[in-house]
Amino acid sequence: MRIAQVAPLAEAVPPKLYGGTERVVSWLTEELVAQGHEVTLFASGDSQTSATLVPCVPQGLRLAGIRDHIASHLVMLNTIRRRAAQFDLIHFHLDLLQYPLFQDLAHKCVTTLHGRLDFPDFHPVYYAFPHMPLVSISEDQRRPMPPHVTWLATIYHGLPPSSCPYNVAGGDYLAFLGRISPEKRPDRAIEIAKRAQVPLKMAAKVDKVDQEYFEEAIRPLLDHPLIEFIGEIDEQQKGDFLGNALALLFPIDWPEPFGLVMIEAMSTGTPVIAWRHGSAPEVVDDGTSGFIVNSIDEAVAAVGRVRDLSRERVRHRFEGRFTSTRMAADYVAAYERLLSGAVRPKPRTSVAA
Amino acid sequence: MRIAQVAPLAEAVPPKLYGGTERVVSWLTEELVAQGHEVTLFASGDSQTSATLVPCVPQGLRLAGIRDHIASHLVMLNTIRRRAAQFDLIHFHLDLLQYPLFQDLAHKCVTTLHGRLDFPDFHPVYYAFPHMPLVSISEDQRRPMPPHVTWLATIYHGLPPSSCPYNVAGGDYLAFLGRISPEKRPDRAIEIAKRAQVPLKMAAKVDKVDQEYFEEAIRPLLDHPLIEFIGEIDEQQKGDFLGNALALLFPIDWPEPFGLVMIEAMSTGTPVIAWRHGSAPEVVDDGTSGFIVNSIDEAVAAVGRVRDLSRERVRHRFEGRFTSTRMAADYVAAYERLLSGAVRPKPRTSVAA
Repeated sequence: MRIAQVAPLAEAVPPKLYGGTERVVSWLTEELVAQGHEVTLFASGDSQTSATLVPCVPQGLRLAGIRDHIASHLVMLNTIRRRAAQFDLIHFHLDLLQYPLFQDLAHKCVTTLHGRLDFPDFHPVYYAFPHMPLVSISEDQRRPMPPHVTWLATIYHGLPPSSCPYNVAGGDYLAFLGRISPEKRPDRAIEIAKRAQVPLKMAAKVDKVDQEYFEEAIRPLLDHPLIEFIGEIDEQQKGDFLGNALALLFPIDWPEPFGLVMIEAMSTGTPVIAWRHGSAPEVVDDGTSGFIVNSIDEAVAAVGRVRDLSRERVRHRFEGRFTSTRMAADYVAAYERLLSGAVRPKPRTSVAA
Repeated sequence: MRIAQVAPLAEAVPPKLYGGTERVVSWLTEELVAQGHEVTLFASGDSQTSATLVPCVPQGLRLAGIRDHIASHLVMLNTIRRRAAQFDLIHFHLDLLQYPLFQDLAHKCVTTLHGRLDFPDFHPVYYAFPHMPLVSISEDQRRPMPPHVTWLATIYHGLPPSSCPYNVAGGDYLAFLGRISPEKRPDRAIEIAKRAQVPLKMAAKVDKVDQEYFEEAIRPLLDHPLIEFIGEIDEQQKGDFLGNALALLFPIDWPEPFGLVMIEAMSTGTPVIAWRHGSAPEVVDDGTSGFIVNSIDEAVAAVGRVRDLSRERVRHRFEGRFTSTRMAADYVAAYERLLSGAVRPKPRTSVAA
């Protein structure tokens, strides 16, 4: 299949530092190439891929210091629109800008929605272009959306089985990994560790916008023999950090559409103790790859039971559900369903009519 | 002529509070209707106009608490694109989003650029769509733009002659009107007033983002018998505030593409003492409607000479150059030049080709 993958231009594919969407686009693109498809990746020029790269800006816009990203995306989309006949399928990883220009190509266009969908700001486009085929990254992510949009599938993210290697032994500490921000609830992680009397290691970056929250709400909690704040870690260190843990704490307080760190932990064999929120109950198999909890009390109890879980079964569950190979196969099945006409986007007159 | 005016959706037309672009769109729209054109205004539903209003969102997005405005604008543009055949001319007051969707209608589309153009972020669209006809609001505004874009005209803003009424007598104080922000240089205004030994009244709002600058750099300068800080004023008070002044100080430190407050002062007969920056030398006729200065020394000297200027001649210059009637006539001439084929946008294949 001749497939165009359209990445956000904020970061390179894969990203130099952070960028969950660009990491997923990279894994998907490499897998589709490996599975024999002819893939063209529209992305920033500092991207690395085995697909055919069409560089749309010299480098990822954020690290290039470009603050308004709209112009660069519009130009990329215009380029793709002019080349649309060269592709059997065009797969967008952008939220918004593609709908007007590609509305008459709904029969061969797919958009994966990577963000939360509960803000009203974006809803006007979903009402105006309800025929554009969409992929959600969890069932929970769909809840706030208008009723008449065209869902093609829910496809959970997946990652290469070697990126966070299986660690048969695990370790003795609880792990917290992510940004320090109120909705990630690092304060809950600290309270759970102290009450469970188990060490907690926190690998977390503090963005400028969260600096005040960190100083006022979190730093005062760190001065405790069980709590170790190790700051930011890179992709290389992540596998060790997660693999050497007893469990990952994921005590979120927001509708996270898909938390990649959960499947990264599972990939190393480390189970996940996650709050019942957002995608967590869909990703964690309660009692097998971790525990879904509703309160600090339940989380503390889960820490007590987590050694009863088999790390091998956690890894096994990861291999069954969350590899990039499975993700790519799901996408190809969705592409084929769309192209076969099994999902019929409501036909629209061309914009030029 | 059947004309579509396309306003930003951030504020109503005219705006309830602030919104320079929406004020200009309102003045232009009302004048075009008065001159006998059939005008359709695409704007927020709380707009007030004698044109045919097509409400594209219920109310201006900023006061509605919508932070991301892209989706609403995309839907508006899609509506206009579907109705494009109903208009002889479509006039956009948006920076970016219209180019891909209207590229094959360049022969009947005009965009007025209302903002500064020296940030690189927007330039990709001007390189990608160089055939789209543009109007600048000052000559100076054009300087940072790529060389091959299609300039149709420079058209200075204009306002209704009655909105800031002529005040034959004027007054004894210097006026500063605008936001408190570093590039507006309220500190210079204060220094000029103190050195010239003339009272200064400052009517200025302090945005949240400028609060720290205000507290640290400006508030300590306010405790002086000559300086009076009166805070925010509304449109009604503006005429009196400017009309009762000896001169308006406009000591800007940034390339302001067009400073409406300069022509509002001139409308009341009050001359303008402005820094040689941005559009100021094009708007102020040095020695007639005010003085263009390069330094605090020159500004202090200008305050000494400003009583020699005739307020009647200042008003006369306003009436000759900066009324909304003149602005609308200039736009109609530009529309007609475009429609006659005198300006030939480089033809482009339709995006759907």
